[in-house]
Amino acid sequence: MELTLSLDISSAKSLQGQIFDQIREIILDGQLGAGMALPSSRLLAERLQISRNTVMLAYERLTAEGYVKSRGTAGLFVEPISPDSLLLIQRGSRARTNGPIPEASSEPLLCFAGSPGGGSDRPELDFWVGRSDAARFPLRLWRRIINRLLSSETSYLTDYCDPAGLPELRLAIGTHLRRARAVSVTEDQIIVTTGGQDALNLVFNLLRSQTRQLCIENPCYLGAQLIFANTNLTTYPIPVDHDGLQTDQLPRVRGSLLYTTPSHQFPTGTMMPLGRRLELLRWAEETDSYIIEDDYDSDFRYDGPPLTALAGLDGGRRVFYAGTFSKSVGAGLRIGFATVPSIFWDEARILKARMSNGQAWLEQAALAAFIDEGHFDRHLRKLRQLYKARRDCLVGALRRHFADPDISGQESGLHLIWRLPASFPSAREIQTRARHQGVGVYALSSGAAYNYDPQAPDDMLVFGFSSLAEPQIELAVGKLRGILGEMSAVTSERTTT
Amino acid sequence: MELTLSLDISSAKSLQGQIFDQIREIILDGQLGAGMALPSSRLLAERLQISRNTVMLAYERLTAEGYVKSRGTAGLFVEPISPDSLLLIQRGSRARTNGPIPEASSEPLLCFAGSPGGGSDRPELDFWVGRSDAARFPLRLWRRIINRLLSSETSYLTDYCDPAGLPELRLAIGTHLRRARAVSVTEDQIIVTTGGQDALNLVFNLLRSQTRQLCIENPCYLGAQLIFANTNLTTYPIPVDHDGLQTDQLPRVRGSLLYTTPSHQFPTGTMMPLGRRLELLRWAEETDSYIIEDDYDSDFRYDGPPLTALAGLDGGRRVFYAGTFSKSVGAGLRIGFATVPSIFWDEARILKARMSNGQAWLEQAALAAFIDEGHFDRHLRKLRQLYKARRDCLVGALRRHFADPDISGQESGLHLIWRLPASFPSAREIQTRARHQGVGVYALSSGAAYNYDPQAPDDMLVFGFSSLAEPQIELAVGKLRGILGEMSAVTSERTTT
Repeated sequence: MELTLSLDISSAKSLQGQIFDQIREIILDGQLGAGMALPSSRLLAERLQISRNTVMLAYERLTAEGYVKSRGTAGLFVEPISPDSLLLIQRGSRARTNGPIPEASSEPLLCFAGSPGGGSDRPELDFWVGRSDAARFPLRLWRRIINRLLSSETSYLTDYCDPAGLPELRLAIGTHLRRARAVSVTEDQIIVTTGGQDALNLVFNLLRSQTRQLCIENPCYLGAQLIFANTNLTTYPIPVDHDGLQTDQLPRVRGSLLYTTPSHQFPTGTMMPLGRRLELLRWAEETDSYIIEDDYDSDFRYDGPPLTALAGLDGGRRVFYAGTFSKSVGAGLRIGFATVPSIFWDEARILKARMSNGQAWLEQAALAAFIDEGHFDRHLRKLRQLYKARRDCLVGALRRHFADPDISGQESGLHLIWRLPASFPSAREIQTRARHQGVGVYALSSGAAYNYDPQAPDDMLVFGFSSLAEPQIELAVGKLRGILGEMSAVTSERTTT
Repeated sequence: MELTLSLDISSAKSLQGQIFDQIREIILDGQLGAGMALPSSRLLAERLQISRNTVMLAYERLTAEGYVKSRGTAGLFVEPISPDSLLLIQRGSRARTNGPIPEASSEPLLCFAGSPGGGSDRPELDFWVGRSDAARFPLRLWRRIINRLLSSETSYLTDYCDPAGLPELRLAIGTHLRRARAVSVTEDQIIVTTGGQDALNLVFNLLRSQTRQLCIENPCYLGAQLIFANTNLTTYPIPVDHDGLQTDQLPRVRGSLLYTTPSHQFPTGTMMPLGRRLELLRWAEETDSYIIEDDYDSDFRYDGPPLTALAGLDGGRRVFYAGTFSKSVGAGLRIGFATVPSIFWDEARILKARMSNGQAWLEQAALAAFIDEGHFDRHLRKLRQLYKARRDCLVGALRRHFADPDISGQESGLHLIWRLPASFPSAREIQTRARHQGVGVYALSSGAAYNYDPQAPDDMLVFGFSSLAEPQIELAVGKLRGILGEMSAVTSERTTT
């Protein structure tokens, strides 16, 4: 049989690869059946006017992969391939699935967590949530640290390291936590993770087998809701008021796992007072439950010192603390951590190994040096000052432009909430309209937040204030007033028509 | 009441922090009950002989955290705290757990995957498995790329990026896969992961809900076994022979998920021939099952071109391909990837967001540049040559020192297997004895491998040859002969006694 091959010299694929692919297709298509001979490499090379070596390499590969077999000097012969198998090799056909076909975006994409909408198509004046100011990243310093690291010990680049995280970084995190959050942990209670989300998964997976039901703040952080939603456990959404999670609403069911953000409730921004914190711990003790404390932006407290974390009150019994450097240093580092009670550490380290076998060395080593050498504290102080001024500017502008706005959550963190008056359009409508005018303000549903009650009033507007400079904030709030003015004019027109 | 505080000026903790902590303890201990007054800040400052401002800061924090409340000019008074809550604040006591108390090392630690034993206490001449040669890491080039990246676009350091991975890197991986492994995937079928282990978890979690049972090679890679063991699904271990997984032993049960390493079976090193590959695909189609193809070290094929991956034969229907740069560039980068059939991509991207919200930017960007600029291919060519020479040296030394050793798995990858003659001691005994003499050779159970049959003969010795230079290899095999000589002398003595 004549082999009809067509080679494309201008193709990015090698001639040898083209020959291999085409002969393979011919065999798999059944055009060249079992026992049939390939032309000799010399003959084919002549016919194709290419080097014989190229053909031989293609033949060698066909042999190695089992499509043909050499019979000594007689040449190469096609191997038998069961006809059923041939049915498979139909490119582009769609496999049946043995379960529900995955739906496109059946779940909101957390990818741009803190960044509602996501993507590169950002509004000009964007109050996006949880974003640090890229311009303030200590780039020169970071580069210096990285160069220093890459000039000395580099076997870490090719090695696996401790799945719990680089010991230097765990030490540095422990020191920071004790000082800044009054959480007494040693490096042997800390697991370094791929950002805060990985920390939540780690703790959730660690406790999964002994958890009988889940409790979560409502509204809550979308990232936690997504983890909880992907189990078959019952989830109790616990309402949040101006003091955070309403502890008296917690179900008194044994073996619960609670997710909470006591220092700056996400998204409402409220701070849980001591009384409730102690109630939470008592509830956990009495119901034999565990608590995940997500302290995602507690490095930023503007009025007074930061509060003792729940994990600091608990003393290493029932609280698993999740933290992140995404807000304080940079989300692109993807470094977060979880602390666990001592008796869970071995198990947590093993679990982290099973999940992803540790984190990249360079970011961990750089961050450890950054903290140890005091740069982190200085950086935080600078950012706190900067963000405080931006917060003050935003609160001032809102108060100037709107009558007595109901603002909450501004004591700390990178965002605040404006609870809209009843007469206002919904937050989602405002978000859409503002977006058209280049202003990014967000309804809870777009701000990486989730509400278990689909009927919940859509009256909270989220403002991330950390990535906009003051003149931009002024401009944006001024624009927002104009937008809301137009909208209320339209609304009242509609009402009167 | 007199407050008895003792301040330690030499302590690392601030005076303000010491005051806060001590008063808090006194309140929580119940020594200072609800309604009782704190001494005025002036008075306490005088008594402690410190600045009044220090005391005021501590008081401010006690107020902020809700331990005390100001009653105007009357001063600060202790807030009521429910007595039950006080019970909790017993540091160091152990929480009851509502499930089994986690056992210390109930599961082998994967942390040093590929590195049996792990830790810094390595034997001098170590045939550890799956380790690239640290000295060959292209450090200067890497540093140049990283400096270039850190000198231009740096908002990626503070931003979240696509949870599926940096688009440039996915493009580069796609190009490499098409060329090197004949796997036709676009960047929209690739998810960048934290090394190979994260890729396995991603695929497993993606298919979990539609999977009714699991199949896995036996013996197999420990990392896969650990993932499978942590579910309530039945796992069928499928025996492996000299052609890899025995496809005729696969259960014909609908909705299976199979883990396999066809290109270089882990740990036995065998290569699955085309016939079985096609049978595998047919089995998957007929039983409505999916396959995870772990191609962990396929970049290293020494004799002939690399074989088409299973995913290349499948054409994007039933095979999920997991790859890693841990062997080819460096494990410390923690970069791997999974490819998924197109219809699963959206879901996989969302899942990756839920798992860890994407990877660190710098490593991804550096790796993308490394591949795009042709360095990766050059690096691979160099490593292949280097490791081929080491393999040849090892095989030669084994053949010289031992009579007709039964070696397998040497065609590719970074390790080979020596199946020991029946008269030899067990692999584990040899490992222990060799270790004492500074030689690291490994039984399957220590080499990140797992056997479902506890009675399986312990007759395979694993040699990773990629991180030892040739003189070291020669020396180590020579020593091994001595060790085995001594052991067999002891054994025959024992037998004759």
